Amino acid sequence: MPKLPILKWIKTYDTSKLGDDAIAAVIVTVMLIPQSLAYAMLAGLPPEVGLYASILPLFMYALFGSSMTLAVGPVAVISLMTAAAAGQVAIQGSAEYLGAVILLSLLSGVILVGLGFARAGFLANLLSHPVISGFISASAVLIAFSQLKHILGVPAYGHDMPSILYDLANHHTEINLPTLIIGVLSITFLLWIRGGLESLLMKTDVPPRLASTVARAGPVMAVFISTAIVSFFTLDQSGVSIVGVIPKGLPVPALPDLDLTIATELLPAAFLISIVGFVESVSVGQTLAARRRERIQPNQELIGLGAANIASGIGGGLPVTGGFSRSVVNFDAGARTPFAGVMTAVMVALTVLFLTPLFKFLPKAVLAATVIVAVLSLIDLKTIHRVWVFSKPDFLAMATTIVVVLGVGVEAGIIAGILVSVSFLLAKIAHPHFAVIGQIPGTQHFRNVNRYDVLESKKVLALRLDEMLYFLNGHTFEDTVNQLLNTNKNMTDLVLLCNGINEIDASGLEVLESINDRLNSQCIRFHLSEVKGPVMDRLNRVGFETHLTGQIFLSHYEAMCTLDPECERNGKAQSAGA
Amino acid sequence: MPKLPILKWIKTYDTSKLGDDAIAAVIVTVMLIPQSLAYAMLAGLPPEVGLYASILPLFMYALFGSSMTLAVGPVAVISLMTAAAAGQVAIQGSAEYLGAVILLSLLSGVILVGLGFARAGFLANLLSHPVISGFISASAVLIAFSQLKHILGVPAYGHDMPSILYDLANHHTEINLPTLIIGVLSITFLLWIRGGLESLLMKTDVPPRLASTVARAGPVMAVFISTAIVSFFTLDQSGVSIVGVIPKGLPVPALPDLDLTIATELLPAAFLISIVGFVESVSVGQTLAARRRERIQPNQELIGLGAANIASGIGGGLPVTGGFSRSVVNFDAGARTPFAGVMTAVMVALTVLFLTPLFKFLPKAVLAATVIVAVLSLIDLKTIHRVWVFSKPDFLAMATTIVVVLGVGVEAGIIAGILVSVSFLLAKIAHPHFAVIGQIPGTQHFRNVNRYDVLESKKVLALRLDEMLYFLNGHTFEDTVNQLLNTNKNMTDLVLLCNGINEIDASGLEVLESINDRLNSQCIRFHLSEVKGPVMDRLNRVGFETHLTGQIFLSHYEAMCTLDPECERNGKAQSAGA
Repeated sequence: MPKLPILKWIKTYDTSKLGDDAIAAVIVTVMLIPQSLAYAMLAGLPPEVGLYASILPLFMYALFGSSMTLAVGPVAVISLMTAAAAGQVAIQGSAEYLGAVILLSLLSGVILVGLGFARAGFLANLLSHPVISGFISASAVLIAFSQLKHILGVPAYGHDMPSILYDLANHHTEINLPTLIIGVLSITFLLWIRGGLESLLMKTDVPPRLASTVARAGPVMAVFISTAIVSFFTLDQSGVSIVGVIPKGLPVPALPDLDLTIATELLPAAFLISIVGFVESVSVGQTLAARRRERIQPNQELIGLGAANIASGIGGGLPVTGGFSRSVVNFDAGARTPFAGVMTAVMVALTVLFLTPLFKFLPKAVLAATVIVAVLSLIDLKTIHRVWVFSKPDFLAMATTIVVVLGVGVEAGIIAGILVSVSFLLAKIAHPHFAVIGQIPGTQHFRNVNRYDVLESKKVLALRLDEMLYFLNGHTFEDTVNQLLNTNKNMTDLVLLCNGINEIDASGLEVLESINDRLNSQCIRFHLSEVKGPVMDRLNRVGFETHLTGQIFLSHYEAMCTLDPECERNGKAQSAGA
Repeated sequence: MPKLPILKWIKTYDTSKLGDDAIAAVIVTVMLIPQSLAYAMLAGLPPEVGLYASILPLFMYALFGSSMTLAVGPVAVISLMTAAAAGQVAIQGSAEYLGAVILLSLLSGVILVGLGFARAGFLANLLSHPVISGFISASAVLIAFSQLKHILGVPAYGHDMPSILYDLANHHTEINLPTLIIGVLSITFLLWIRGGLESLLMKTDVPPRLASTVARAGPVMAVFISTAIVSFFTLDQSGVSIVGVIPKGLPVPALPDLDLTIATELLPAAFLISIVGFVESVSVGQTLAARRRERIQPNQELIGLGAANIASGIGGGLPVTGGFSRSVVNFDAGARTPFAGVMTAVMVALTVLFLTPLFKFLPKAVLAATVIVAVLSLIDLKTIHRVWVFSKPDFLAMATTIVVVLGVGVEAGIIAGILVSVSFLLAKIAHPHFAVIGQIPGTQHFRNVNRYDVLESKKVLALRLDEMLYFLNGHTFEDTVNQLLNTNKNMTDLVLLCNGINEIDASGLEVLESINDRLNSQCIRFHLSEVKGPVMDRLNRVGFETHLTGQIFLSHYEAMCTLDPECERNGKAQSAGA
């Protein structure tokens, strides 16, 4: 076990850092409070649950997390996944539903800590970049549409686009006009704050940091203005849904009753929530750490996030992770250490203790507007286009993820994405690239005869395989060699350049021996060149070289020169060359 | 679609080939008849079903198959899989059980033909050599133990070792002595025939081909001798189980009633039976074809085997494939074309028409002895040991297959084997080998600094990654580079030798760009060398080179010479070198 990360930074902590952290904490708190309320609503929970999830977890992450600037708390995608998972075992609004959510936090925490101690952070690598990107874009669309019900003031359930659209269409006659007006105005206001206000303020004499802070305070402003209006005009009497009375006081830490059946049912969802939360956290954590030449340790992050989620569950909150936008704000606001998070937690706790009556008349439409505007920035069309240009298999994995997230749901989407990307990877290995190679005149280098103007030996066929030689492609490779045998009748030797063969398994070994035997029966010697160290070690263990009709050469040039004197002449023709 | 394979060989067919084929057909028929009866019994079916499966399928394979010498019919492993699958939906001995078996033949045939037309033979590559080998060895043990009940004359069911052993132990007081004596004598006789008789005959004046034929006729001799003894002493009255009355006449081809529920239940098993049958067929087919410089076409084989299985189902038979031992015998006996199979089929049909009364008193213990002796040769301890020496991951995949086949069953075993081997493959890619490289003095070659005595540049760090750069390993590689950055403070350039990077996906591209940015922030240029053609094409599509702070070099030597003049001096030191 590495040392607790906190022991590294606490020693050099001073008032300068404290000042920086305090400023960042204020800015993040202003952002976090409306987000906590909104993401709790997105997860189908009472708003205070979001606030609870923004207190204890931040303390725990400060103790165990390795990123200096990650801002932990409820985030949109994880809240959506939480709603989908808890909705499978209980009805929104019931005590069982809240129990299921708390159980998800605990399970997810235990899974993350377990993966951390098992140093199994690499499992997150199963999620390719296109799959994550597609998953987040599609989730953002799903989240935005799921929040439309609060903007329109109609009921709508379901965690996939068809159900959401069906519910909205079914209730289109029940739209509540005051709610709609508040919702649309809030969205417009928040978009303007985000887009126009900051640059407007920048042009005036307002100091840049203040300008940026004001812009970030948009949601809080929307919250206070709309609460005041609803309260003054008693719009809740006209059908505007409000947050209502939030219980005062901090939750008493407690472990929920453990229902093993439900826990087992929730386990796969908890696992996916853990992995997605970890991937989101680590990617933002790494990006920010790199900017300051710091490093984060993925396995320590697992433990930090796991501790945060266990704390969230014990404190009655929903699953949390390091959020992208809040972490960037925390970083830009100058946070130096996780102590900024501790101060944020204290401020959220004070809010829960003293300020909750302020939120009674807060319209849900404003919270929904906050969510919608926040997630719109997660839709990443640029990456979708770039992946399309770069790689069609990657694009297909991404497109599958998007389609399944929207059509079926978040869990199915992420699983489909993993399956498609792993399948394409296996298919890639199963169809390896290979090339007949020849010598670039005047050099010791050999390249694909189809791509370069090279010299080929008349009696020595040289072949390069650009893939591990494994069970997936052994037979294909053997077929390839057999075909080449039929088209190259006069050869005396075949040299396989192995610099692209990174690994050989037992099936690959069988294939090499089978090729060796077949060539032998036709009086052709079989040689290998540039075999990589780990591969050579393995071949030596079964005495492969003693069966080989030819030799194993350190360099392909040496092999060709030994087998065909022409090669050495071609290699030295440099000075006299054309 | 390629031409029907039969059109290729029928044109040059002559009496010389006919003669060779006829001799092989006689030998194979003598071997096939007891095997057909025995494998039907192994599959839990009336003995005639095995004979039915040895008629129509052979005609169809002759029309559509691409191997000249493959002997199609019931085989041990497929019969065991058939019993396990049919046993899940019906009780042995019932009409539903036979219906399920026929459905399995048809489904398997349709699946094989479908895979053939989809050119999806590569799917069989999911079965690695160690998994197949472990599967066959474990199945052989399971088959041998499952046949013990016939030798002991006690009832025993189950398709896994624990149930078989439990049943045998439970009934150990009911052992039938005459049955046991017949069984043990048969096994002894068959082992002697196999081991001693042939070499004994070789030493006499008997022509070798006759000697080998006599040795192959062992099972038929056992069948006739034991039938005569049982019939003469009416041992069936003493509790010796006999084959009984076999219905006379050929089955009328018919399609069974299709029960969609049962068909759906049988589908996964049918798929596994198809894949295993295909793999067994193709591996023996390829081995034999190679000996005569012929080739088989895997996708045509799928169609040939599929047609054979559909025919087997229509003719009331069980799933078939190309058997290893019979094909080798067919080959060694001199078969030249699939017409040998047609003649075999005719002889089996004549047997069904006229000779079945002969089998009435045939004791089941003798058939069981035939199976046991046949499958003992499938247990391949040599390969198990060799895989252990060569590769621990391969061995683990093999061991898992063996343990699960024996402990749970054949289907679970093969699935476990595939999952473990794919997991190890993914884990291998996730933990790529990389090396810091240096120049071998006096050459243009660069090798791992930990393995070779090489020269390293003081300011240019050269790194080689021996793996595709993919979502599974991108983050790991980035971490590696970051660690190297911390330990090499004075470098001005980093060159990544890409001759082992066979492919880059979108996640890998992100990683390269992230490394480029990070190096740039530390004023280190990032170069690539020896990028493979297909990878370069892909990088060009997104204009990677324009973001790169360094260059992309055709050869690593060129890269090093450009960045550090020392390199060129070291490379030319050849003649003056030590």
